[in-house]
Amino acid sequence: MQPDDFLPRLVEALGPDTVVTRPEDIAPWLADWRGLYRGQAQAVVRPRRVEEVSRALALCQQAAVPVVPRGGNTGLCGAATPDGSPRNVVLSLDRMNAIRSIDTIANTMVAEAGCILGNLRRAAEAEHRLLPLSLAAEDSCQIGGNLATNAGGVNVVRYGMTRELVLGIEAVLPTGEVFHGLRALRKDNTGYDLKQLLIGSEGTLGVITAAALRLLPRTDVRSVVLAAVESPAQALSLFSLLYARCGARLQAFEFFTGDCVDLVLAHAEGVQEPFATRYPGYVLVELADTTDESALGALLEQVIGTALDDGLCLDAAVSASLAQLQALWKLREEISEAQRADGPHLKHDVSLPIERIPAFMDSMAQRVARLDPGIRPFIFGHFGDGNLHYNLSRPAGAGPDWATRHGKAVTAEVIDEVVRYGGSISAEHGIGQLKRDDFLRTKDPLELRLMSEIKRVFDPAGIMNPGKLL
Amino acid sequence: MQPDDFLPRLVEALGPDTVVTRPEDIAPWLADWRGLYRGQAQAVVRPRRVEEVSRALALCQQAAVPVVPRGGNTGLCGAATPDGSPRNVVLSLDRMNAIRSIDTIANTMVAEAGCILGNLRRAAEAEHRLLPLSLAAEDSCQIGGNLATNAGGVNVVRYGMTRELVLGIEAVLPTGEVFHGLRALRKDNTGYDLKQLLIGSEGTLGVITAAALRLLPRTDVRSVVLAAVESPAQALSLFSLLYARCGARLQAFEFFTGDCVDLVLAHAEGVQEPFATRYPGYVLVELADTTDESALGALLEQVIGTALDDGLCLDAAVSASLAQLQALWKLREEISEAQRADGPHLKHDVSLPIERIPAFMDSMAQRVARLDPGIRPFIFGHFGDGNLHYNLSRPAGAGPDWATRHGKAVTAEVIDEVVRYGGSISAEHGIGQLKRDDFLRTKDPLELRLMSEIKRVFDPAGIMNPGKLL
Repeated sequence: MQPDDFLPRLVEALGPDTVVTRPEDIAPWLADWRGLYRGQAQAVVRPRRVEEVSRALALCQQAAVPVVPRGGNTGLCGAATPDGSPRNVVLSLDRMNAIRSIDTIANTMVAEAGCILGNLRRAAEAEHRLLPLSLAAEDSCQIGGNLATNAGGVNVVRYGMTRELVLGIEAVLPTGEVFHGLRALRKDNTGYDLKQLLIGSEGTLGVITAAALRLLPRTDVRSVVLAAVESPAQALSLFSLLYARCGARLQAFEFFTGDCVDLVLAHAEGVQEPFATRYPGYVLVELADTTDESALGALLEQVIGTALDDGLCLDAAVSASLAQLQALWKLREEISEAQRADGPHLKHDVSLPIERIPAFMDSMAQRVARLDPGIRPFIFGHFGDGNLHYNLSRPAGAGPDWATRHGKAVTAEVIDEVVRYGGSISAEHGIGQLKRDDFLRTKDPLELRLMSEIKRVFDPAGIMNPGKLL
Repeated sequence: MQPDDFLPRLVEALGPDTVVTRPEDIAPWLADWRGLYRGQAQAVVRPRRVEEVSRALALCQQAAVPVVPRGGNTGLCGAATPDGSPRNVVLSLDRMNAIRSIDTIANTMVAEAGCILGNLRRAAEAEHRLLPLSLAAEDSCQIGGNLATNAGGVNVVRYGMTRELVLGIEAVLPTGEVFHGLRALRKDNTGYDLKQLLIGSEGTLGVITAAALRLLPRTDVRSVVLAAVESPAQALSLFSLLYARCGARLQAFEFFTGDCVDLVLAHAEGVQEPFATRYPGYVLVELADTTDESALGALLEQVIGTALDDGLCLDAAVSASLAQLQALWKLREEISEAQRADGPHLKHDVSLPIERIPAFMDSMAQRVARLDPGIRPFIFGHFGDGNLHYNLSRPAGAGPDWATRHGKAVTAEVIDEVVRYGGSISAEHGIGQLKRDDFLRTKDPLELRLMSEIKRVFDPAGIMNPGKLL
């Protein structure tokens, strides 16, 4: 195919309604939501059916046109933003947004990639089931993007990452071949589990078009406690106690520093100081169960009583109503937005072996202070999974270009320390463009070689999401 | 390397104690435990350290010598038995049997491949933690084999397959390169999740030498009910009720037919008739929790009361003591052994979309009866996962060679029906030699092509476990 033939053929194959080509219509698809990345594209394709995805990809491969799959554009690493090549095609899954089936006997849901996660959660809830994937962007992110990035969120401590909720996927390879892996079987030991490669591959191997997801029993009985802690070490002891005593009921164990509370109180509305005193750290614990509200409340009271007696926390506030429960959660949920309102900052989504978090945080604080004692850390995250959002805001008085000017040096310190502690440089946000250099620099060469060779198996022409991940 | 040089070099590299070469010493390593398969080998290698595995594999690859990894030899599909080539090397992991660490803060255990599963379970228990993988062969199977076959078992309904318990693995590729993936992180979104390929690959990609496994809270509070059901459809309704009401407490939901009970009563010792009447089917349900025995018992009584009132079961016996609990489990656990004692039979480990089990069982019964009305089905399995062991015993009066003579035709009927119902021809036992032809015949050609190409990435010389799986 001549390069000039590509776009007319694409329009002819899919229709002008599906292929967006006017520059002013394309423009909104070229940047990530944070405005960190901006690229170019000759077209945006918005297919409605898997056959259209197939046709689009086959034509792109024939013409060696790079393809950038895109979901809800809520990613934090620029994986769904095209690079600077004007030849890119952005493939948006937003119109493939049907729930194909919900089965309350098999406890499965088959959803197309463009479904908004929050809508899927509500659809499951209406059928008295739970889709446990829950994260801040759930009302704008799409399940296809969640799958492609193996999203995490607040309930991983109980239910695992997105990967662990997937029974099967349908995907289109760059050849246009459809991977018909939409099986909803709980057990299927027939060969290599290929879907695992596509999950978390950030659009570099193919395009996920639908998934069969596990649904869990609804756990409407909930109880939340906010516990004040003097240190991450104390939070760790509290986690051990809760994990052993509460078992599967423990569905969130979130940590944030006292500085995060200051930030939220300064920037968010309708948030209240949780205790009479400001404490160095806070842990938000949620227990949930299918049944017996009083038993759950009693268990939480009892375990927190033990924790207070044994010095595993300094203070605690247990939710006595749904309104209180939501108020406690709001303290945690508003941190990201408060930090954005505060101004330039650097996000670091990392994980550590959980028992090393206290030592990591001490050591990391010293490194940051040595770099610039004015840097303001706002550290929070999914502590129960060993996952910290180690976010650093500009020093008071630093200019609006602080993150741009100092980001590389600051982030290098964090990455080095994470690697030194045996952690991961991306716990749940993925690699994308943002962390690609650090990924290529820190990953084991053998793993990188295997990944590159697997990439060639799926995408021999190298058209899938170039410049991301690998 | 000249072919004649290989064995001396292997002995030189690893020592005579590690390389078994005398035919009489090799003989016990050449057959599967059921005696269905027997092969040949020039040596058995029994390394003690990952470096020895590496050296052995590098030499095998240089000499193009086929390698057959072997764990506890409890597999049912012949994946760990060499084929007929006298050049094979059997690589036994039995001496790599150290627990490298147990961490009760991170809730992880790092175990070498040769560790006996039951020993790992007990080691976790001693630290007040649970390794939830549990299956009939647990006191002889090795964790490396469990990983290589993605083993299932009785608690999958709650905890998932082996895959879902693995945080990281160490493996050796046929090049001798060591895959250092022994990370114990709960979250790590840095590129393709390569360990997922090795898990369930049945030794065709490399040799798993160790794994970091998740440990769960110990659930010492247990309650079991045996419910009598008139049909698989009724069992399905009972499952729906229990799943929704008991949530994560539901850790086993096993089904077996009345015929299985007859078989067990005829062949096993110390087993008692569970009810005054023989029923068409039985469901064994286990609930477990970290705490509050009386609440768990009350919940089970309540839910079973609802089930009896609503006609979701015919009769029920709740365990009132540990002895009763064990007696109820014995009915289920003795089925395999009773069927073996009864004589020749054919095992079919299949899974179905759970809501289709009743229709499948009806339809399958007709097909079997049409083939030979004398065939005696003994059907049991992990119903809650959609997993049936659809086992068929020889008709009364048929000779000892019944399985050999009729196996192919009988199994073909089962496979066809499973495929027609959208099921899997191997739920938890894998493919090995036994199901290879059926696998290659029924698997999607695109998936087979991807698997073959991935195999070439890991094992370009094709030395890993030839004739198994792919």
